[in-house]
Amino acid sequence: MTRLVFLNGKYIEEKKAKISIFDRGVLFSDSVYEVTAFINDKLLDFRSHLTRLQRSLDELNINYKVSNLTILDIHKRLIKANRLNKKEGLIYLQISRGNMERDFEIPKSKHKINIFAFTQEKSITNNPKLSKGLKIITEEDLRWKRRDIKTTQLIYPSLLKTKATEGGADDAWMIDNKGYITEGTSNNAYIVSKNTIITRNLSNDILHGITRKTVLEVAYKLKLNIEERPFSVKEALNAEEAFITSASTLVAPVIQIDKKTVGDGLVGPITKILKETYLKISLKTAS
Amino acid sequence: MTRLVFLNGKYIEEKKAKISIFDRGVLFSDSVYEVTAFINDKLLDFRSHLTRLQRSLDELNINYKVSNLTILDIHKRLIKANRLNKKEGLIYLQISRGNMERDFEIPKSKHKINIFAFTQEKSITNNPKLSKGLKIITEEDLRWKRRDIKTTQLIYPSLLKTKATEGGADDAWMIDNKGYITEGTSNNAYIVSKNTIITRNLSNDILHGITRKTVLEVAYKLKLNIEERPFSVKEALNAEEAFITSASTLVAPVIQIDKKTVGDGLVGPITKILKETYLKISLKTAS
Repeated sequence: MTRLVFLNGKYIEEKKAKISIFDRGVLFSDSVYEVTAFINDKLLDFRSHLTRLQRSLDELNINYKVSNLTILDIHKRLIKANRLNKKEGLIYLQISRGNMERDFEIPKSKHKINIFAFTQEKSITNNPKLSKGLKIITEEDLRWKRRDIKTTQLIYPSLLKTKATEGGADDAWMIDNKGYITEGTSNNAYIVSKNTIITRNLSNDILHGITRKTVLEVAYKLKLNIEERPFSVKEALNAEEAFITSASTLVAPVIQIDKKTVGDGLVGPITKILKETYLKISLKTAS
Repeated sequence: MTRLVFLNGKYIEEKKAKISIFDRGVLFSDSVYEVTAFINDKLLDFRSHLTRLQRSLDELNINYKVSNLTILDIHKRLIKANRLNKKEGLIYLQISRGNMERDFEIPKSKHKINIFAFTQEKSITNNPKLSKGLKIITEEDLRWKRRDIKTTQLIYPSLLKTKATEGGADDAWMIDNKGYITEGTSNNAYIVSKNTIITRNLSNDILHGITRKTVLEVAYKLKLNIEERPFSVKEALNAEEAFITSASTLVAPVIQIDKKTVGDGLVGPITKILKETYLKISLKTAS
């Protein structure tokens, strides 16, 4: 069965889903996106994703007001139309400034955005690789400095993720010019040290992860110690536990960093309880 | 008359030129480009553009061997098909890794690239704004750190160019974290100080401009003093002359930086001779 995708108001076969070569996303990466997980047809943290989407659009001065109801309807229809076997997966949504003659100077005239979305079938709650724990390499962070805006400028993280897997690891954590970890290629990074969860504080240096937000709320409710601050590679190598969060991985343990085993190489207790509690709470509030 | 553009082997009306939403350029900015100027139907510095295109592809591990003859043929046909009034303009060429299911990990399986090209009519030799001289603002350089690879990750330069024009200027020069100019939003930056042309040395910090290369060769032939090194904003504000180079502007004088007049506010003698000699020499070698 061919996948049905959403493009500018229509639900069409994926092979027919095409946009103009004059789309500003194609020519200038003038486009932003969100990825939302669904479990049993329910979307996790949906409102927060749309709030962040609106922020990304605003930061690029793309004049478009996100309608939560409309976007929710698109997501629901895509899930239904594609009757996914696993009832679990991701929905990818992208909005660009629209089609315009190529010019670095953004034309002042009004233009219609391009918007598209598609489903990806994927194990969210029961992914063996994620349960066992991930192997991480560390690499220099060469990305642009507004990582808080979720643009499609993703070639560097994509190359790093590929490099990691080619070398037998699963992902890469990126390091700023002071030796501190920023984040993973498409996830936020955490360590547990002296029984305290440490993750980088929000700034333009990292994506303001939606799963990160909810997981920290969960940790707070569980009365766990939290420190939001940059941590070094050295601290990470000596951590008791390490994990990542993202919409597609939820909370996933890290068991190796730069070929050094984290803790005893098993999923740590704090990672475990966060993973379980996050899933329980986010399913309750799912849309 | 509608413009004919090139897309994956075919010449089609621009309105019909569409690529898949699963193009890696659309989703990950996994795409590189070149812009070549033509005058009297002849392409300037064409071979150098293709050499750089191949380098950009190689740096991203996009497995595609550029055929100079094929790409030249595409360019020539586009110019002919669109019978441009002014006989001057630009040809934009973009290549992406191709259509693939969205994944940060680049699939190992072989895929066909997407390639497209289109013409833009534009005054190259007789652009009044460029002749009179440009007003420049300076802004922090927030781009990723591999500016030597000509990817479509261009949203930041595009936003800066727009900011510059909205404020009554023409373009922006970007400043690294040590206070040195890197380059313009889509051009290389130069000052003339104590009768010496100063422009930033090649590295991953700047695009390796094709026009830059030829202009420096011209300067050498003219026995002008050249220093390839970073220069500060302060040096720029005290310069005798300033100018930019790019495929679309060739050599264009800068007469104001951050609202301060450069020299006496007129086109300086070194800028003038470089502009004239560059045009003469590059027309001789045009394809």
